[in-house]
Amino acid sequence: MAGNTFGEIFRLTTFGESHGAAMGGVLDGMPAGIWVDLEAVQVALDRRKPGQGALTTARKESDTVEFLCGFHPVPNAEGHVQTLGSPIGFQIRNADAHSKDYDALAQTFRPSHADYTYQAKYGLRDYRGGGRSSARETVSRVVGGALASALLPKDLQIHAYVQRMAGVGIPEDAVFAPADARNHSTGCPHPETASAMETALLTLKDQGDTAGGVIACQITGVPAGWGEPVFDKLHARLGYAMLGINAAKGIEFGSGFAGSESTGSRQNDAFTNLGQTSTNHSGGIQGGISNGMPIEFRIAFKPIASIRQEQNSVDAAGRPVTLKIEGRHDPAVLPRALPIVEALAALVLADFYLAQRFQLNA
Amino acid sequence: MAGNTFGEIFRLTTFGESHGAAMGGVLDGMPAGIWVDLEAVQVALDRRKPGQGALTTARKESDTVEFLCGFHPVPNAEGHVQTLGSPIGFQIRNADAHSKDYDALAQTFRPSHADYTYQAKYGLRDYRGGGRSSARETVSRVVGGALASALLPKDLQIHAYVQRMAGVGIPEDAVFAPADARNHSTGCPHPETASAMETALLTLKDQGDTAGGVIACQITGVPAGWGEPVFDKLHARLGYAMLGINAAKGIEFGSGFAGSESTGSRQNDAFTNLGQTSTNHSGGIQGGISNGMPIEFRIAFKPIASIRQEQNSVDAAGRPVTLKIEGRHDPAVLPRALPIVEALAALVLADFYLAQRFQLNA
Amino acid sequence: MAGNTFGEIFRLTTFGESHGAAMGGVLDGMPAGIWVDLEAVQVALDRRKPGQGALTTARKESDTVEFLCGFHPVPNAEGHVQTLGSPIGFQIRNADAHSKDYDALAQTFRPSHADYTYQAKYGLRDYRGGGRSSARETVSRVVGGALASALLPKDLQIHAYVQRMAGVGIPEDAVFAPADARNHSTGCPHPETASAMETALLTLKDQGDTAGGVIACQITGVPAGWGEPVFDKLHARLGYAMLGINAAKGIEFGSGFAGSESTGSRQNDAFTNLGQTSTNHSGGIQGGISNGMPIEFRIAFKPIASIRQEQNSVDAAGRPVTLKIEGRHDPAVLPRALPIVEALAALVLADFYLAQRFQLNA
Amino acid sequence: MAGNTFGEIFRLTTFGESHGAAMGGVLDGMPAGIWVDLEAVQVALDRRKPGQGALTTARKESDTVEFLCGFHPVPNAEGHVQTLGSPIGFQIRNADAHSKDYDALAQTFRPSHADYTYQAKYGLRDYRGGGRSSARETVSRVVGGALASALLPKDLQIHAYVQRMAGVGIPEDAVFAPADARNHSTGCPHPETASAMETALLTLKDQGDTAGGVIACQITGVPAGWGEPVFDKLHARLGYAMLGINAAKGIEFGSGFAGSESTGSRQNDAFTNLGQTSTNHSGGIQGGISNGMPIEFRIAFKPIASIRQEQNSVDAAGRPVTLKIEGRHDPAVLPRALPIVEALAALVLADFYLAQRFQLNA
Repeated sequence: MAGNTFGEIFRLTTFGESHGAAMGGVLDGMPAGIWVDLEAVQVALDRRKPGQGALTTARKESDTVEFLCGFHPVPNAEGHVQTLGSPIGFQIRNADAHSKDYDALAQTFRPSHADYTYQAKYGLRDYRGGGRSSARETVSRVVGGALASALLPKDLQIHAYVQRMAGVGIPEDAVFAPADARNHSTGCPHPETASAMETALLTLKDQGDTAGGVIACQITGVPAGWGEPVFDKLHARLGYAMLGINAAKGIEFGSGFAGSESTGSRQNDAFTNLGQTSTNHSGGIQGGISNGMPIEFRIAFKPIASIRQEQNSVDAAGRPVTLKIEGRHDPAVLPRALPIVEALAALVLADFYLAQRFQLNA
Repeated sequence: MAGNTFGEIFRLTTFGESHGAAMGGVLDGMPAGIWVDLEAVQVALDRRKPGQGALTTARKESDTVEFLCGFHPVPNAEGHVQTLGSPIGFQIRNADAHSKDYDALAQTFRPSHADYTYQAKYGLRDYRGGGRSSARETVSRVVGGALASALLPKDLQIHAYVQRMAGVGIPEDAVFAPADARNHSTGCPHPETASAMETALLTLKDQGDTAGGVIACQITGVPAGWGEPVFDKLHARLGYAMLGINAAKGIEFGSGFAGSESTGSRQNDAFTNLGQTSTNHSGGIQGGISNGMPIEFRIAFKPIASIRQEQNSVDAAGRPVTLKIEGRHDPAVLPRALPIVEALAALVLADFYLAQRFQLNA
Repeated sequence: MAGNTFGEIFRLTTFGESHGAAMGGVLDGMPAGIWVDLEAVQVALDRRKPGQGALTTARKESDTVEFLCGFHPVPNAEGHVQTLGSPIGFQIRNADAHSKDYDALAQTFRPSHADYTYQAKYGLRDYRGGGRSSARETVSRVVGGALASALLPKDLQIHAYVQRMAGVGIPEDAVFAPADARNHSTGCPHPETASAMETALLTLKDQGDTAGGVIACQITGVPAGWGEPVFDKLHARLGYAMLGINAAKGIEFGSGFAGSESTGSRQNDAFTNLGQTSTNHSGGIQGGISNGMPIEFRIAFKPIASIRQEQNSVDAAGRPVTLKIEGRHDPAVLPRALPIVEALAALVLADFYLAQRFQLNA
Repeated sequence: MAGNTFGEIFRLTTFGESHGAAMGGVLDGMPAGIWVDLEAVQVALDRRKPGQGALTTARKESDTVEFLCGFHPVPNAEGHVQTLGSPIGFQIRNADAHSKDYDALAQTFRPSHADYTYQAKYGLRDYRGGGRSSARETVSRVVGGALASALLPKDLQIHAYVQRMAGVGIPEDAVFAPADARNHSTGCPHPETASAMETALLTLKDQGDTAGGVIACQITGVPAGWGEPVFDKLHARLGYAMLGINAAKGIEFGSGFAGSESTGSRQNDAFTNLGQTSTNHSGGIQGGISNGMPIEFRIAFKPIASIRQEQNSVDAAGRPVTLKIEGRHDPAVLPRALPIVEALAALVLADFYLAQRFQLNA
């Protein structure tokens, strides 16, 4: 219940504070004999790295993952290595940590950050860069997710993209490929929308303000039958994972909130064959179990709380103070959150993929 | 990973198929010495019982909970009994189970039900009334939640209410008390809206159609400090629990999806004192941990899939069939889902309440 | 951590106090489609039933298991039923519960029973027949184990037998078949030893005294590769399970304590082929994982603490008292513990059997 | 179920292969605000270090633990640091790894090692020094146990000592202090016995042979009430932990196997006061819960399997081979196992210590 482990069979435990010696994790439950391209893991990690454009912070994080164990010592011709079935331990050293930037915040609680709640919970906190509550912790989730992807069937594809940001969204009738999210620094796969988003975002940045938005995710290639009844429904576990991402405040599957306004006769997905329906209002999940159609969900992200404007707050004694957060901060979390969403989806799916092996007698 | 247990320290395991001998559960992790009013548990159970009005099915479920163990044999003057610290086992016998109504469905998959996905997962299924996938399973969650409420601090209040249904919603500026949800069969605490909802719902019912909607939940009295970092954030666990409710398709906390359209300068909740903020866009949770403000979230429920209209589907061999679901079915799941939402909220909070005892040294 | 659940993938949760309404349990993680002979479960339960001879108590427990859910409604020609993949809930009602026999003990702690420790732990206890600490709880483990056996490969055989009791043991050079344990009320498969044990036991019974002893267990048909590294070694999990049996005070695998007096050159088991060794000092387990040879272990049971002799103790205030335990009690726990040992072995093995499915890629 | 995590609330996950980049672990569930002397952790680690005398291997392991996170950045005057409540990650780099010594073993299975069983389980293995099955993994358990000790009440004392080794044991009537185990390289606290053990051990070493023995452990200062019913009895969890130590083949509590030969009238521990009994045949545990008396148990260790004598075995194809294990190996595992036993005892107790906080209402 300490909150640092995710997964039942395929389990990722992460550790690390933003300005400590290292971030890292242990992935346990990976079957033996899986070939892994460790360079592909680093590529996934590079996608969430800051310092890649005007839209992201200038902090230069090295973000180089070192694997400590879990692989057979002899690589194949492509340089891939094979899992041993033992836990995979890894670390990402923290560098470029300007702790002094944060000293002023040791006695003040930044609004809508975790400063106050951590203090209330633990009685003390690492105030440097948010400590354990920092989004920097997600480096470990990205590594775990990249390893999960190596386990999953090759035709299973996970694509997250920025659908709305800074009040700008992809039009309903727009045609685009989710995978094109990688082509633009906003993470939006629709070029016209991406440009408009960028403009809106830079305006906010100039004002010292920040934006929220919505990330959509589409998963194809999941066969019917993944997920568990009652509490561990496929969408309940996906929701559990996604709501744990920093700044996530909501999630909906298939037609979601809009569908709740509709009627059964319009929302029901008629079967056209086994594993195929004429519509997909269910978002690929019925009764908590995949039905063979694409899995679709949307995540709401609040605007980043670190704004460069003066704000009212209180100090450790509850006395009024004003504060202004300086330092390097993104105007929106969404572009860098895409690989995190994909990583968590892969972690959730890997768990269910392995769980389904229990049903081989069926 | 079999999906039938929820909670880490305070753990509810449920069992039962809709038309088997009994539903039931085991609640483990309840501390010893807690006084429980077992009649209050039955009252909670009665709230989700069908057959209570024009809006709910005519199925007469007895829904009487029998406690099998876990309490000291000597009650106090009020008839309350004390927990022993051992697991609390309970059952609710299934009665009035018209299995024959369902025989026709053994070879057909009802659209947007779990029939096909269970068959795909397990290779066989109990086709009578949905078997394990039936919403009848939630009787056990309601019992578990009522027991959780006995553990939680007395000033902690959980109130769920129907905010939107059949396209009708409480106006933004309406004044109402969430607790009044119990006064109307729709579960809507705002009388004018409740009447309009009822009318809309009865119209749909006449058409053999069904409605979806939104349940809102407000929790007061949670002190700052509940929740865990990273994966087990308070809202991630609440989302995990709520998305496991039959027909739930989305959830949002605080300003949620609407807030994702806003900016940091407008969304940040300025502290006015320790545990107090001038706004509550965060919905009472910051960094995944309660901040002392009311916890607020909204759940989207899809329209009930069992409609009395002819639908297209396929049989076990994938051949086209048409089917029309007869029998007794509610036009909307929301009124009866209110005690389920409250029960799951109590289960989630009981877990964090106990987890917080580890921090006594802080 | 409440102690009432065993297993990671194949999980048994038990509930019930000795003199409450019912004992019972939930078995979760059973794959779908397994055929189960429910009458065979009742037969296993009958083996641990008291009232079967001079050596066991006269208490007439009905011990009839009722299955509440988890099976497909349509049996096959032999009357066997198929698992649904959903949790199997079951209960055994408590009958013939002479609660008044125990009233005198409400304020006194029986020596070497759990009365005092439960009071110290929980601050209250169900003093009737030991409450949750009663060996009656093991009915649920026997049911769980019988279900586990239905899952395990048919050529996997588990045989427990009484090797030593009341100071009488099977000679080292005796020839016998472990399965013959069922032929004698002592549970000893070697007829001459069984007779001598019975005589020694009846003498102790006449004196109001009780005996301890050693149960040996042999498991054949486990392929090489079951078990997990480090903490979940096959023998560590077996030891964990067996030490949880009431009155168990020790366990050893293979040559165990005797082998600790020997040397490496004499203890090492030389391989003669893959999965075959010339000796079996390791008891079928090397590095915590099965090696294909028979798994062998021995469990030490202390003498039953309920003796019909006057004993010194203290009351709830710590004041000296004397007490004499009346009522019906066995002179030794071992004969009735045999099906419990076998049940727990089956539960442990079912967990590892399923876990090994993760390694299919290897 | 992957076997690399121990504990329910206070959880240690370890990782690392003997000749990989690093060993390490993550300790989760440590409450915030606990002061820890990190140098004391290193001291505990040094106690299991090889290369400390004629009785241990010459392998020079650096065994320096590096903490990666989990502590507040500001130490107190003594240099101690405070836990944050977040996971404590740590690593011990592997140095002096003579991998080539092991290349010859890649195609051969050493008798009574885990080579064959790992190959059978996973389909591949890291053959260098046993990989994950190496006793080197226990460095992580020692670190975890030292951190657990910082949490436990100060008057709780855990002392393991070598009671029997190489066929030499402490006489029953000998007077000695368990804590003196640290004064002699054998780990035996009774000087005369220690000398005899050393002589016997060196003789075996000269013969290229190895010895087994028994480690006894005494724990004082545990209040009555720790432990859980049914499956998680205090001695069941201790047994689970101890049987996971490399080469452990048996465990007994209190009078154990000897007590199973006795009678109830002689074995029962009469209460003399609350939390006090006139004898301690129960080894401080009754009904699976501590009774306030010293907790006592004994662990049987088999002789080390790595002997410098020619042995018969088979290769990967099952063909007969002979092999002789060269390299640096201890003649007995017991002296270095003492800190491991103490570490695991501390881990088990820390879990129950925190679990008992749930019972504050009692």
